[in-house]
This record gives sequence, structure tokens and C-alpha cells, in this order.
Amino acid sequence: MRELKERILKDGCCLEGGILKVDSFINHQMDAGLMMRMAEEFVRRFKGTEIDKVVTVEASGIAPAVMVAYLLDVPAVFAKKKVPSTMSGILKSEVFSFTKSRSYNICISDKYLTKGEKCLFIDDFLANGNAAAGILDLASQAGAEITGMGFLIEKSFQRGGEMLRGKGIHVESLAIIESLDNCEIRFNELNEKNNKED
Amino acid sequence: MRELKERILKDGCCLEGGILKVDSFINHQMDAGLMMRMAEEFVRRFKGTEIDKVVTVEASGIAPAVMVAYLLDVPAVFAKKKVPSTMSGILKSEVFSFTKSRSYNICISDKYLTKGEKCLFIDDFLANGNAAAGILDLASQAGAEITGMGFLIEKSFQRGGEMLRGKGIHVESLAIIESLDNCEIRFNELNEKNNKED
Repeated sequence: MRELKERILKDGCCLEGGILKVDSFINHQMDAGLMMRMAEEFVRRFKGTEIDKVVTVEASGIAPAVMVAYLLDVPAVFAKKKVPSTMSGILKSEVFSFTKSRSYNICISDKYLTKGEKCLFIDDFLANGNAAAGILDLASQAGAEITGMGFLIEKSFQRGGEMLRGKGIHVESLAIIESLDNCEIRFNELNEKNNKED
Repeated sequence: MRELKERILKDGCCLEGGILKVDSFINHQMDAGLMMRMAEEFVRRFKGTEIDKVVTVEASGIAPAVMVAYLLDVPAVFAKKKVPSTMSGILKSEVFSFTKSRSYNICISDKYLTKGEKCLFIDDFLANGNAAAGILDLASQAGAEITGMGFLIEKSFQRGGEMLRGKGIHVESLAIIESLDNCEIRFNELNEKNNKED
């Protein structure tokens, strides 16, 4: 998506270790207009896909997920990273974060992810795909189906995209970054040629 | 706001200790259409208020905040509950949670809350007002001004609303709950008579 890629080049910040900081417009401060346009782009790319619900993980996934849900007129649910004391009937999965070098649990109430539901997973980043794998695990526990996965930014030099597409999942990423070597942001233009909008 | 109050009566759940569970449509699963209509109601109630930015706290505040920001065409920023390792220049404030009986820090980068900015704070619940007080502290550290505070649900039997209004802050709550005694949800109808929409 051209607008997102231009914004990443303008306001994104490369840190050592393949980290891309986009906290001025995505995951701390948020450009709400851009969020809505990214949501519209997901709706376009997943046209024809059966979607009963949008699923995400707190906190950075919530803004794009709720906007996609708004446009599709379906509910959104966000997996929590802490098990709330007032919640019973919990689906839980362990996720390892490379960025933070530690594991955490994500959980969703079994009331809000249920057998037969067709879910679109939306998140801000796809890197190693660990959060996505956790969501697949929760969906499998619930008997729900993940009919698509949409990410704002994919780092194709990490293995999450390959892993998810290898499972036959329809994955869409609005900006695919091929390399952050020498703190230079390089997009995977080839991969995105297929997308007329770009 | 009539729709929200009716939804609370229909789908809200009262737990021991004055806890109202709204996790089927607000803070776990989210009704995205309702979120947008609540955002529109905030825009109506804060008409004429100077707002450069919407501020909230992760995670449950993000959905309504980003929708208000979208309608007002301003950025939103969410305070984080953990200090990220890749962030420098942090404004930090300690918040005590009565529900969880423990303290936590909220933080915002000093790049995204700055001197002279006029901010609307949006959150899901107003109970004791501790998160709101934390945001006032962050704004004061930054030299920013909180020009209004909007909450989806206020529990007027706790003291947050009185504390904030006592400071002269323009507070708007879309549903004000006077009592949850005996697990019966009772709204403060008097207070809301002033609002024509209801």
C-alpha cells in the first residue's frame, strides 16, 4: 500500500537488530485516518473471504482490528496478554517474543472464540509469526477457523510469512520489508506488484 | 446515551464487589459499530472544545480513542503500561488499581505529549479516577493541557467523577451507574437528563 510505504520511509526509524520503529503513527501515537485507510485496504484484499469476526492481540493490533470490524460490520475480539482475574473459561497459548526474549501467554474467553466461527486475524507486525501461531492454536482449541491474516507491516527476512503461507493461510501484508540491513529500509517490490492498488 | 445503557442492561454482568463486566461488547469482544456511535456521541458532547490529540491508556481505551481521533481528524496516543525497551525520553506516572490491588506505571514518549498540546482523554471506565489522575500527571510533566475527559461508563458511587469535576475538568460519561448494589444495575437518570440525546 503506497501511502503506508511512503509513511514508513518518512517517519519510520531503524534500530540495531532489525527493529523498525513506527511509534509515531502506528503503535504508540496512531494516525487514525491512515488506520482507517489501511482497514479499507484489508477489506478490499479479503473481499470474498468469509469473516464472522476479527481477532487481534492487545495492544497495537486493536486500532486496525476494530476499524476492519467496523467496515465489515462484525465484532472484534482482542487476545489479552494477562489472564484477567474476573474471567473463567479461558483459551490460552504460550507465545515466545524474540524482541523481548521471553514468553508470555495470550488468552481469549471461550465465549468469544467459538466452534465454526470464521475469523480474520489482524495485527500490526508479522516477523517470526509467533503471535499468529498462538492465535492459530487458540482457534484450533476453540474449533474456530482462521480464514485470513492481515498485517500492516511484514518483515519478509524473518520467517513468519513463509510459515503461515506454508500452512495454506491467506496472508496479506500492506508493506513488506525485505531488509533493514545497515539501517536502510528496503521494500519487497516484486511481491507487491501483484497488488493493483500499489 | 440510550443505546449504551440498553446494551449494558442486556449484556452487562454484575460481579461481587461492584464490578461490572462488559467484556462481550467493550473490553474484550468489541461491538465496533457501537464503538463508532459512542465516538460520534463524544464528538457531539465536546463540540467547541479545542482538541489537538486524543490520549488514552492501553488496552481497552484504544478502540474508542482511535475512533474519536478518526472523526476529529487528529492523532491518538495510548499510554503504555510497560516501559518499552526501545523507548527513550519517557514521561511516567504511577497508577494504583483498586480492582487489581496493585500499582503500575503508565508512560508516554515525550515526543507524543508536548508543551501546549490540547488533549482529550478517552477511556472505557471512570471509577476511582486513578488512570485519569495519571494522565493529568503526564500532561502536567509535558506542559500539555487536558481540555476534556470522556468515559464510556462512569461509576458515580466511586469518587473519580467528583475528583475530576472538582478540578474543573469537563467530564462526559456516556452511561453513569449510580449503584451496583445487590448486583442490580441502576443508572443515574437525573444526571443524564441534561443530555437531550438521551
